[in-house]
Amino acid sequence: MENYLSKKIIALITDFGTRDAYAAVMKAVLLKANPALSIIDITHEVNPFNIESVSFLLYSSWDYFPQNTIFLSVVDPGVGSERNILLAEQKGKILIAPDNGSVTLLYNKKDNFRVWTPSLKALSLIPAPESSTFHGRDIFAPLAGLISLQGIETVAGEAASPVLLNTLKPVLDKKIHTIRGRIIHIDSFGNCISSISAEDFPETRKTGKSGNAGKTEGSEDTEITEKKGKDKKTAKLKTAVIKTESTEIKGIEEYFARVPEGKALSYFGSTGFLEIAVNMGNASEILKIKAGDGISVYY
Amino acid sequence: MENYLSKKIIALITDFGTRDAYAAVMKAVLLKANPALSIIDITHEVNPFNIESVSFLLYSSWDYFPQNTIFLSVVDPGVGSERNILLAEQKGKILIAPDNGSVTLLYNKKDNFRVWTPSLKALSLIPAPESSTFHGRDIFAPLAGLISLQGIETVAGEAASPVLLNTLKPVLDKKIHTIRGRIIHIDSFGNCISSISAEDFPETRKTGKSGNAGKTEGSEDTEITEKKGKDKKTAKLKTAVIKTESTEIKGIEEYFARVPEGKALSYFGSTGFLEIAVNMGNASEILKIKAGDGISVYY
Amino acid sequence: MENYLSKKIIALITDFGTRDAYAAVMKAVLLKANPALSIIDITHEVNPFNIESVSFLLYSSWDYFPQNTIFLSVVDPGVGSERNILLAEQKGKILIAPDNGSVTLLYNKKDNFRVWTPSLKALSLIPAPESSTFHGRDIFAPLAGLISLQGIETVAGEAASPVLLNTLKPVLDKKIHTIRGRIIHIDSFGNCISSISAEDFPETRKTGKSGNAGKTEGSEDTEITEKKGKDKKTAKLKTAVIKTESTEIKGIEEYFARVPEGKALSYFGSTGFLEIAVNMGNASEILKIKAGDGISVYY
Repeated sequence: MENYLSKKIIALITDFGTRDAYAAVMKAVLLKANPALSIIDITHEVNPFNIESVSFLLYSSWDYFPQNTIFLSVVDPGVGSERNILLAEQKGKILIAPDNGSVTLLYNKKDNFRVWTPSLKALSLIPAPESSTFHGRDIFAPLAGLISLQGIETVAGEAASPVLLNTLKPVLDKKIHTIRGRIIHIDSFGNCISSISAEDFPETRKTGKSGNAGKTEGSEDTEITEKKGKDKKTAKLKTAVIKTESTEIKGIEEYFARVPEGKALSYFGSTGFLEIAVNMGNASEILKIKAGDGISVYY
Repeated sequence: MENYLSKKIIALITDFGTRDAYAAVMKAVLLKANPALSIIDITHEVNPFNIESVSFLLYSSWDYFPQNTIFLSVVDPGVGSERNILLAEQKGKILIAPDNGSVTLLYNKKDNFRVWTPSLKALSLIPAPESSTFHGRDIFAPLAGLISLQGIETVAGEAASPVLLNTLKPVLDKKIHTIRGRIIHIDSFGNCISSISAEDFPETRKTGKSGNAGKTEGSEDTEITEKKGKDKKTAKLKTAVIKTESTEIKGIEEYFARVPEGKALSYFGSTGFLEIAVNMGNASEILKIKAGDGISVYY
Repeated sequence: MENYLSKKIIALITDFGTRDAYAAVMKAVLLKANPALSIIDITHEVNPFNIESVSFLLYSSWDYFPQNTIFLSVVDPGVGSERNILLAEQKGKILIAPDNGSVTLLYNKKDNFRVWTPSLKALSLIPAPESSTFHGRDIFAPLAGLISLQGIETVAGEAASPVLLNTLKPVLDKKIHTIRGRIIHIDSFGNCISSISAEDFPETRKTGKSGNAGKTEGSEDTEITEKKGKDKKTAKLKTAVIKTESTEIKGIEEYFARVPEGKALSYFGSTGFLEIAVNMGNASEILKIKAGDGISVYY
């Protein structure tokens, strides 16, 4: 029987669209290099001028893929210019991407996320590009094929400090009880996903072994204190006010369907980020919110 | 050599679109549960408010897939509410879907189509959902993974009576020689597919062993009678009148190209249902027909 | 371990779109015939009335796929009429397509590109079509399955002279230093790809073993002459004028980013054909160029 655990998966994200042969040709090059690869499309319809969205899609997919996955991100408006290529590794998963900020959320939020440039020796194994406009086919796919066969160790060169997008880091101002972030992705339902996640909220003061909650048996006192802390936080979320340029929403709901049809709400979405949606409607269109808009939470 | 016959196929139908990572994350969860799965996309672009279309897509794909296929349908406008999950089985193929009417056509038209809810024990093996909005990732994909490994028997709980959409059942009124149905799907060519299939027409009276036609050798008499019956039916189809709110078409054609370019026609399409099309044109746009419109056949 | 090299790849190109089950049903039929197939989508969003684009997509993908690939092209506006089916083979790769001109670029530009019709014996092994409108499911997919199992030799019938699209052959008029071609494909970035490739330009006169350049060691003289020839050609490209009905561009650039943002340029694209693009913009929309437009190069 085939050993599926050693079989590598390529998770592909590009801005090539689905009307041309570009994505298929990349897959062909990958399979020519390593016929045992399995290829999963994340999407080929990224807006090439929204690297924040690419960073979000990579970050929100990362944990769900098996360990033997190589993420290959070819959203590269700077193709042909002198931007670097990055290799990254975390918990056995690998990322190959142009050095344009795509790694920001993974780099900021994942422990032990290591980043390199490819070694010159590895790059020398790749045939000279046939084209200055299709590095996905001529450089990224051969590099991914090489890594799938030889491992990251033999391909990684020097450690790198990646380009990071500051706009993806929410700013907390405790004095005025405000978190300022940004709309980083509009999904195909029109839900507006922000850069703000639950961990960006200031912790309500807790006592007791809250860090071990559920792992050790706390005394009754601790449990009560914890519960109170949680209640306080929940209460705060209920009274928070969420503002964008065009919208104001009161309260962060726990369930999507807590508001009537057609009404706007905010909630922590399936990816952990604060989202603005309209129950049974397209929030981006109805509320006129677009990627790049500012969002503030007054808690 | 790998045993391909025992390798399970997942056939995926969702309304997640192709611009986000949602479908890819479901696939990742599936492959994490069972690395030997092959995944085929039916479509991710279903209109979430047209469950009739989902039911049509499942029904018209069903017979063509290999026996070892698990259909996974996650078109679920009621996510987060108390709707059930359904498991179904027919001739070795399996379906997992929310209990919202998606199974209607399969349930009504396939022999031995059995339906269950998942057992509580099976559900208890799935980790608590991380989110109230992404059951595709948190419940449906793990459940499909489980079934692919353990079989339907160990996961199915009690037999269920699924939610059925009455609108998918055409109504025959023999007195006024009319069949009333509905447009259930507009395909990407603009062809308008109705809920009416050949079997909804009243049988022209036949004598002889018509049920065994082709299997046993009928007498010459029987053959002639059958032929006459068939001719009568064909004649009736030729004079039938098909009406929607915006269109009237005379006759059901046997071949698509029987009318001039730009002209409307009706015919039994590749899925067995009566369709309205425009030769070399987009019928839905030209004739202003949309999903949900009524359609009547006067035969 | 599985023998991946003997595992066949199906590369699929259709006009079925991605909203229906049509492409999935073709894949299901393929996997039912041969469970060991790997299926790669080239695209399902071809404009069915632009066979030149189909020919371009097949040609520009061909070389990148592994040897064990069967290209299956089902863009077939003539379905149901009496058009032939073609089988073709080049360097171990196989193509199955309707005889409507799709093979033109491969046939004109690839050495040893052989074309047949399927043998009657092979066609007799395929069950009678269930439908006159879905030959992809009922004829092409079973035929591809058969070829994947039995090889092209047992399925190919008589040698065929395929339908060829004259419009795909650029016309060189040396007297007036002009090449006339056509826009054959608009990609999803709006880049306008023409039928004119570098080999359509008249060779600048060269001396020496230019054909063996890089393979044998030329004398210094030869190298200089070659360099001069190359320089002359480059100089000519720089002064060439490219005209469409709506646009005039001076010079063929070597790199995409050689013009300022928002400005039009022409260059030889990643597929080897002359393209018109706008730096950081959608050339088709901005310059009002569409598939089928004429293009002339005055060199």
